[in-house]
Amino acid sequence: TRNIELAVVAGDGIGTEVVEQGLRALDAVLAGSGTTVSTTEFDLGARRWHATGETLSDEDLAAIRTHDAILLGAIGDPTVPSGVLERGLLLKLRFSLDHYVNLRPSKLYQGVTSPLAEPGDIDFVVVREGTEGPYTGNGGALRVGTPHEVATEVSVNTAFGIERVVRNAFERAQARPRKQLTLVHKHNVLVHAGHLWRRTVEAVNADFPDVTTDYLHVDAATIFLTTKPSRFDVIVTDNLFGDIITDQAAAIIGGIGLAASANINPDRNADGSFVAPSMFEPVHGSAPDIAGQGKADPTATIASVSLLLDHLGLPDEAARVERAVAADLAERGGRVRSTAEVGDDLVARIAG
Amino acid sequence: TRNIELAVVAGDGIGTEVVEQGLRALDAVLAGSGTTVSTTEFDLGARRWHATGETLSDEDLAAIRTHDAILLGAIGDPTVPSGVLERGLLLKLRFSLDHYVNLRPSKLYQGVTSPLAEPGDIDFVVVREGTEGPYTGNGGALRVGTPHEVATEVSVNTAFGIERVVRNAFERAQARPRKQLTLVHKHNVLVHAGHLWRRTVEAVNADFPDVTTDYLHVDAATIFLTTKPSRFDVIVTDNLFGDIITDQAAAIIGGIGLAASANINPDRNADGSFVAPSMFEPVHGSAPDIAGQGKADPTATIASVSLLLDHLGLPDEAARVERAVAADLAERGGRVRSTAEVGDDLVARIAG
Ligand SMILES: CC(C)[C@H](C(=O)O)[C@@H](O)C(=O)O
Ligand SMILES: CC(C)[C@H](C(=O)O)[C@@H](O)C(=O)O
Repeated sequence: TRNIELAVVAGDGIGTEVVEQGLRALDAVLAGSGTTVSTTEFDLGARRWHATGETLSDEDLAAIRTHDAILLGAIGDPTVPSGVLERGLLLKLRFSLDHYVNLRPSKLYQGVTSPLAEPGDIDFVVVREGTEGPYTGNGGALRVGTPHEVATEVSVNTAFGIERVVRNAFERAQARPRKQLTLVHKHNVLVHAGHLWRRTVEAVNADFPDVTTDYLHVDAATIFLTTKPSRFDVIVTDNLFGDIITDQAAAIIGGIGLAASANINPDRNADGSFVAPSMFEPVHGSAPDIAGQGKADPTATIASVSLLLDHLGLPDEAARVERAVAADLAERGGRVRSTAEVGDDLVARIAG
Repeated sequence: TRNIELAVVAGDGIGTEVVEQGLRALDAVLAGSGTTVSTTEFDLGARRWHATGETLSDEDLAAIRTHDAILLGAIGDPTVPSGVLERGLLLKLRFSLDHYVNLRPSKLYQGVTSPLAEPGDIDFVVVREGTEGPYTGNGGALRVGTPHEVATEVSVNTAFGIERVVRNAFERAQARPRKQLTLVHKHNVLVHAGHLWRRTVEAVNADFPDVTTDYLHVDAATIFLTTKPSRFDVIVTDNLFGDIITDQAAAIIGGIGLAASANINPDRNADGSFVAPSMFEPVHGSAPDIAGQGKADPTATIASVSLLLDHLGLPDEAARVERAVAADLAERGGRVRSTAEVGDDLVARIAG
């Protein structure tokens, strides 16, 4: 039997609540499959920072590295200064483990009401670069607090970093029926980074001749996400543009309560094992306003578990979880259920 | 009698077509008012660049400076490499004339169908910073065309630059019934720039105690623009975030065919005159696919003329143009009209 060593970072706010249901779904789908899971919980986030001042220690990171994958709930809390946990924990994990493929599928499931009047058939995937762009932490501030303060943020983009994520996006596009890849950037203004992205997409396209590509400025992309989201199949984009458009993408498919994501490092060692654990998390945040009330919808976390299973080479189990999510959404209607009740229903569908 | 010296940069594609109607609307509203207009046309854009290699010469810029305002159609053409005209002409005008208030109102007019199922009452204004952020052209590229290429884009933000636009946004919020100002940024990741923006909004708020402020990360802002745009009154934001969310804002009010904008330098000399001409332009681009066919909707340009009149201290005339636009939209229904026909109808309403 195979055992999955799973690092669990439940984090802050509703993170704990939704992760609990995610783990139940994982247990349910693996029951009797010959694959087992053992979990290690990592106490990271606001509580830990208040208690110790630590965000992610070298020991934590080393321990997390020994796992096969990470399930993350949500990081962030209004009691912690903005940026401390985001940069020191969430982004530190993404950067240290070189999660260069930030994968965010957007599918409008049957039974879900989109805020768009005519949503059409929404079913696309955003491949957001995860380790470069304006997220690198480059930049700084001078004369802070004076009328002469200057603050810079540097977007760093490399041929190496862009090529690997673009290649991954082409692979994903090639595996889908429509085989369509859209680059989203802003190369008419961010000319250096933008042209590097554009040239890279053109070059890698040679290895995927059956994939059709097109290009949209990020501002135009927000228009199409409003007026004709069915035009998208696979989108590849920069870290910051990806952050922005995936929240919009989540909104049009019924809200970030439903949006799953994966922070993937697809690279493998010579023996076939992954060089680092990938991380699976709902797109939503810690939602302090509803934390502790058992109101949070765990669907996005459970859908993220499906991405986790797929990444670990268990496509049938992944599909079973996704089918359970789809069936639950198709039938939920206006019913109000607690976090645990949604978990119960999904576990029952997965088991059944 | 007062005479307005107007610099006209019709530009590329549909730019010429919509500017023609904008000028007719301007003439119509000023007829018999005691204010006259004289125009100087500047041949700038793709044609000029192909003919001379020039984007905006020092002489052009000096000549434009002597005017009271600029009416701009659209800049950009697929035959010119991306970035050349944007950086060399459009952004050069905005930066040289220090257009630090990029004003973009979003109003869902009666008679216009929003792509949102439940748009509610959309009526907000985005004050986009226009002279800093990632638009400064800072950054560069190293080892271009090799596998070791590195491209950077530097967002430059100053206390001076942010304070003046934030102050302008507070003034606009204070003049509106709801008096609500939302800062949109990403201060949990772009910590240096983001915290400077946040501290500036907090500090300037002391001078506008009756204005309520709140904050949204840019990714969350795209969600609210989809699910509850009625929550917004005035938004103040960075140059790039403003670019992105104003296109989304245009989409939800019925398309960029309707979205007006102003690039304003509100500073004045000791004698009360403006230090530089402000520039008024539709948000849409040059739309090469429909150029020359008389199909472009000039409404956004005519609505930009309303912003121009307001800026030049002619609020009654501004309101008359806006009322004409509103009335035309309320009654247009599904009718297909040419660019000139929409112009005719608006001119008739303005005159009537
Ligand atoms: C919390 C924040 C740092 C994060 C990001 O900007 O990537 C979040 O918005 C996301 O999209 O996962
Ligand atoms: C054409 C481009 C340079 C411009 C911008 O990015 O500002 C446009 O998108 C706009 O919003 O006016």
